[in-house]
Amino acid sequence: MILIGERINAGFKDIKAAIENKDGDVIKEWARKQTDKKATYLDVNLGTASNKPEDLCWMIEMVQEEVDTPISIDNNRPAMLKEAIPVCKKPPLVNSTLAIDEKMDELLPLVAEAGASIIGLVMDETGSPKNSDKRIENAGKIFAKIAEYEMSPEQLFLDPIVMPLKFMQEQAQEILKAAGQFGLFSDPPCHIVCGLSNISNGTTQKSLINRTFCTMMIANGLDAVILDVMDDELVNAILTAELIMNKSIYADSYIEAFRR
Amino acid sequence: MILIGERINAGFKDIKAAIENKDGDVIKEWARKQTDKKATYLDVNLGTASNKPEDLCWMIEMVQEEVDTPISIDNNRPAMLKEAIPVCKKPPLVNSTLAIDEKMDELLPLVAEAGASIIGLVMDETGSPKNSDKRIENAGKIFAKIAEYEMSPEQLFLDPIVMPLKFMQEQAQEILKAAGQFGLFSDPPCHIVCGLSNISNGTTQKSLINRTFCTMMIANGLDAVILDVMDDELVNAILTAELIMNKSIYADSYIEAFRR
Repeated sequence: MILIGERINAGFKDIKAAIENKDGDVIKEWARKQTDKKATYLDVNLGTASNKPEDLCWMIEMVQEEVDTPISIDNNRPAMLKEAIPVCKKPPLVNSTLAIDEKMDELLPLVAEAGASIIGLVMDETGSPKNSDKRIENAGKIFAKIAEYEMSPEQLFLDPIVMPLKFMQEQAQEILKAAGQFGLFSDPPCHIVCGLSNISNGTTQKSLINRTFCTMMIANGLDAVILDVMDDELVNAILTAELIMNKSIYADSYIEAFRR
Repeated sequence: MILIGERINAGFKDIKAAIENKDGDVIKEWARKQTDKKATYLDVNLGTASNKPEDLCWMIEMVQEEVDTPISIDNNRPAMLKEAIPVCKKPPLVNSTLAIDEKMDELLPLVAEAGASIIGLVMDETGSPKNSDKRIENAGKIFAKIAEYEMSPEQLFLDPIVMPLKFMQEQAQEILKAAGQFGLFSDPPCHIVCGLSNISNGTTQKSLINRTFCTMMIANGLDAVILDVMDDELVNAILTAELIMNKSIYADSYIEAFRR
């Protein structure tokens, strides 16, 4: 499973303050903590704290001073990415593009040239998809477009767009169904990713809902997730779901072995 | 979700001793405890403690002196069922038949006549199925046979046969895949059930593996499960998976509401 640590995001107060005060230690601490918890990528998001490319680059540099974990640049503006991508020591995962041709034609050349990967949100100019069919149609558009730029399916992370269970309960099934189809576009398939915490937005049982939905998504092909990697119960559930999918080999100590 | 409480089974020492000593209080206590935890059915299994129909009937009577919860008779011998089914105050769930014509032709008339339901294990004379195709083939045989006896799909609980993750890791995926197909035989569909604890047999993480597999099965249509209904974390995961499948309506208090 590709674990994308969500915590270096200016939506969190400590990160927002760190950006404003240029306090690299806070960024480094979260880079270290999430890496110790086996994050595969570290998401880096400026949020509303700033719109300056140099601030995004500074965040990436702080992370890279502390750890070798690759960066997921959580920004979709070409002007930002043009500066941020070259700062990354390892090919980053760009988060994200929409299924809109002009957007993709701006972003994908930057991504392709850097040998980076990209998260494709299956949303187009008509807004959030309401059912699985629309998600699959948009996924197909993104899939066709990355081929135009000679990117491989493995460079694409399709995101079916998770919506809050509390407010749009009927969407969860549509998301599961769509994910189940994304894997059929090619062999080897593209990755399937989601921003997990959206599912539990506004609920009283966030961790339980997150991990339950995540395992159900894994049953439908999810192989990457933007998550709170500090949530041990969530990661344990993911490790277990991967055993069930026969993607890792059972050992009595499978949980301890992962953490070592 | 149909929750079938597994605990009144002579595989457990206290139940075996209770049968031998005709100590009805032990049976009643487990009937009460599982009913308080919202079991839909109570599985009643003589195990190797006895092969006398009167002992099975006595167990059922003890349960029924304490609670109104319907019985799942965990026995596949027609001579036993002929006596045990009439003792049941509510139509029982018979656990189980194999996908073997002679077996089904012996059992199903008894089940059909009583308006009872039956668990159909997708195993035939060749032994345990090795892949999803064989499971689906056997399921089709059972499905066709219940129609011969004019039973409705709702009276059939297809069981894809869960095998231990530790010893047959590649089977879990085949089971998930098969379950995903069982729902397509008819509309309304038959039930899909499994004996959950088999999946974690011999492992060090029984509860975690049980609940993770269970939620992944629910994503593939599972709507009934033979389980340790005393495992609150497992039941919470099931309640959450049912919300995700849009089978119950979200409320912030969904867990407390179920337990009330």
